[in-house]
Amino acid sequence: MREIPYKIYLEENEMPTQWYNVRVDMKNKPAPLLNPTTHKPMTYEELRPVFCDELIRQELDDTTAYFDIPQEILEFYKMYRPSPLVRAYCLEKTLNTPAKIYYKFEGNNTSGSHKLNSAIAQAYYAKQQGLKGVTTETGAGQWGTALSMACAYLGLDCKVFMVKCSYEQKPFRREVMRTYGASVTPSPSEQTEVGRRILEAHPGTSGSLGCAISEAVETATHLDGYRYVLGSVLSQVLVHQTIIGLETHTAMKKYDIHPDIIIGCAGGGSNLGGLISPFMGEKLRGEADYRFIAVEPASCPSLTRGRYAYDYCDTGMVCPLAKMYTLGSGFIPSSSHAGGLRYHGMSSILSQLYDDKLMEAVSVEQTSVFKAAQQFARTEGILPAPESSHAIKVAMDEAIRCKETGEEKTILFGLTGTGYFDMFAYGKYNDGEMSDYIPTDAELEPGFAGLPKME
Amino acid sequence: MREIPYKIYLEENEMPTQWYNVRVDMKNKPAPLLNPTTHKPMTYEELRPVFCDELIRQELDDTTAYFDIPQEILEFYKMYRPSPLVRAYCLEKTLNTPAKIYYKFEGNNTSGSHKLNSAIAQAYYAKQQGLKGVTTETGAGQWGTALSMACAYLGLDCKVFMVKCSYEQKPFRREVMRTYGASVTPSPSEQTEVGRRILEAHPGTSGSLGCAISEAVETATHLDGYRYVLGSVLSQVLVHQTIIGLETHTAMKKYDIHPDIIIGCAGGGSNLGGLISPFMGEKLRGEADYRFIAVEPASCPSLTRGRYAYDYCDTGMVCPLAKMYTLGSGFIPSSSHAGGLRYHGMSSILSQLYDDKLMEAVSVEQTSVFKAAQQFARTEGILPAPESSHAIKVAMDEAIRCKETGEEKTILFGLTGTGYFDMFAYGKYNDGEMSDYIPTDAELEPGFAGLPKME
Repeated sequence: MREIPYKIYLEENEMPTQWYNVRVDMKNKPAPLLNPTTHKPMTYEELRPVFCDELIRQELDDTTAYFDIPQEILEFYKMYRPSPLVRAYCLEKTLNTPAKIYYKFEGNNTSGSHKLNSAIAQAYYAKQQGLKGVTTETGAGQWGTALSMACAYLGLDCKVFMVKCSYEQKPFRREVMRTYGASVTPSPSEQTEVGRRILEAHPGTSGSLGCAISEAVETATHLDGYRYVLGSVLSQVLVHQTIIGLETHTAMKKYDIHPDIIIGCAGGGSNLGGLISPFMGEKLRGEADYRFIAVEPASCPSLTRGRYAYDYCDTGMVCPLAKMYTLGSGFIPSSSHAGGLRYHGMSSILSQLYDDKLMEAVSVEQTSVFKAAQQFARTEGILPAPESSHAIKVAMDEAIRCKETGEEKTILFGLTGTGYFDMFAYGKYNDGEMSDYIPTDAELEPGFAGLPKME
Repeated sequence: MREIPYKIYLEENEMPTQWYNVRVDMKNKPAPLLNPTTHKPMTYEELRPVFCDELIRQELDDTTAYFDIPQEILEFYKMYRPSPLVRAYCLEKTLNTPAKIYYKFEGNNTSGSHKLNSAIAQAYYAKQQGLKGVTTETGAGQWGTALSMACAYLGLDCKVFMVKCSYEQKPFRREVMRTYGASVTPSPSEQTEVGRRILEAHPGTSGSLGCAISEAVETATHLDGYRYVLGSVLSQVLVHQTIIGLETHTAMKKYDIHPDIIIGCAGGGSNLGGLISPFMGEKLRGEADYRFIAVEPASCPSLTRGRYAYDYCDTGMVCPLAKMYTLGSGFIPSSSHAGGLRYHGMSSILSQLYDDKLMEAVSVEQTSVFKAAQQFARTEGILPAPESSHAIKVAMDEAIRCKETGEEKTILFGLTGTGYFDMFAYGKYNDGEMSDYIPTDAELEPGFAGLPKME
């Protein structure tokens, strides 16, 4: 057998040239998007004013197993991919665990995360369609940065609505996007009807992802030659993100490594879905078995405490309804919640897999997450994003469990990104001023009460 | 011949296991460090209160060609090395140049730069000597971050004196260091005698590197079990940084690539020295020829407008005298100068090579540097540090020259780091508020007047 290097980089000729569509292998397909007015499945034509044509095709397609990655996207991927699959030797040693820990590190690009994998795909299809530009929302800022980079590369205009509290707390994220030529507007803004409506109803609001989505969609549909693009949740995004899992799968097969447990953080689900898809495919086809664990923040627990129901994807209720594990589109995470993973819902694909008990989910509190992040930074050298640190925390927990039981399990987790723009939150942790927040059932109730009434 | 991949990563078994000491091949050796009082060459014993024993040996040794890299450092290097050697296809296409452009990218680690290469070496030797901790200074913050990471990994205490203006303008840099367990003190501080003296003489000063060095040295010599370490300028640091050049040299030989021009930014000189050393060795031994270009900011032009003389390395004049191209230890770059590369002097090794006309130097103005940085970011995807962007600017100039002459030159430059903590400066550029500053001869005069009088 080959000797396993510390970091596994695939060769260029081993790189995936297709994305994988896990829906093909799912017995229970994810429920379709519904028209918010008629509650009938959204058609290709109905989606065209909002989304790019080719992306709609990918969104609606649950029968094609593989999509060819266009040559221009493959070229762009070469700029920052393959990402390394790293054996966490130092962490294993520190934890004194018999477990073998691997992580797939997606942070070594300027967007600082895996988001670039889908950003370039979406920008590419927009460009192919002859569009002038795209609109989007961003919360923590990783998606907005990724899309700005992709648009700069292809010469597309990029309009980002950035959740206002993030716009104000993260001026440097905003500046990166501007460096890539994007326009960045704090949301809610006076630029859109939905923004003005929200500002009137909630003067002084610091915004939310759901609200920024509504503004971005409105802007796209009112401008000639623009479409709206989204960084997570949608099935098309999970498809693009399978580049993560496919690279990992190839690298592990090459060195004959079988992960017993695969762990990822879950906000909208794109990273987790992308990482696990090829492995889940094997499980669905009965070829192999794995444990999958989705990790979410205790303060925004859509899988562990949400309901599996059709819900609005945005605050302005202009998007299609999606069936997902959700806290209700009116749910807003506590302001003490740091970092991303603050979306009220979850990818339809992952929601279905979770409902079918093919995947587990756990929630973790943020001080424990930052503690794990700090330990990881000091031992493995990488300063992780708060989002990614949710996966680190649970990977460490599983490794410690192996120490107790003496099991030599192989643990794989997704390290989605770096925390360079999250030092405000790290500072709070360093100063001992970070708090935990777990909503009570009563506090979750208003969110559920806002779910659309379905026939 | 092998097909050249987009990014060249060496295999683990191709990685250098020794650092190279270019002084061995220099006909004119760098001038020795002098005792600031007696003006006699500093001895090993005289340096021991300040520096770690093994590092002094490396500093004084100009006859050993190669130093074995200790196993523990090789293990640490594996966490983030090899760094990729990248062919800048996209930039070439944008510039429409027949030149082939390569860059060695050192920014893919949490310190955000090449500084980690020497930080781990210095921390390792401190640990080997049984010390409790180390002290240092940091300006832009890359070195302080790197040293914090290395010390956290080895369990050493780390005390960083951070130039006050940087401490205040870059709270997030400070927070990264704290996350790695370092203590960070704004300099000048009340903690040291030299700090108090400077504060008395210049109340409200925002500090300088030379002043922070003095404070760090004083702290190290007054604390039991501590030594002072430095991130650039010293020959030992250049030796450690040859890991950059050795990897590059191996990768280029492997694919039969001959760089005609090798370009690096120069502050204290560690990155440039590390990159060019193996190639310079070939040139010194008459085995090959290359053009070497040091790039410095027009606002702090030590090579292009400095004097080759013995000078103080720090404001407090507690360090040994070094013979170098210098603007005088009293020189303080304009406050409009963004980013690093603000040291008044230059590595003795590079100074001697430059004086022997084995290397060229150019200075560039900062708005042109940020323009190049932005273009690079948009085409190559990496957001470069302002320091590194000096090299980008000149590499682009040379590539454009090739377009004019039709020459297919191969250009190699060092991309030392990322600009994630420099968004304040990028913001000024994005807002059109960045200015250029070139000191007049009269403005340089006071610095030169402060040079020590030598017999």
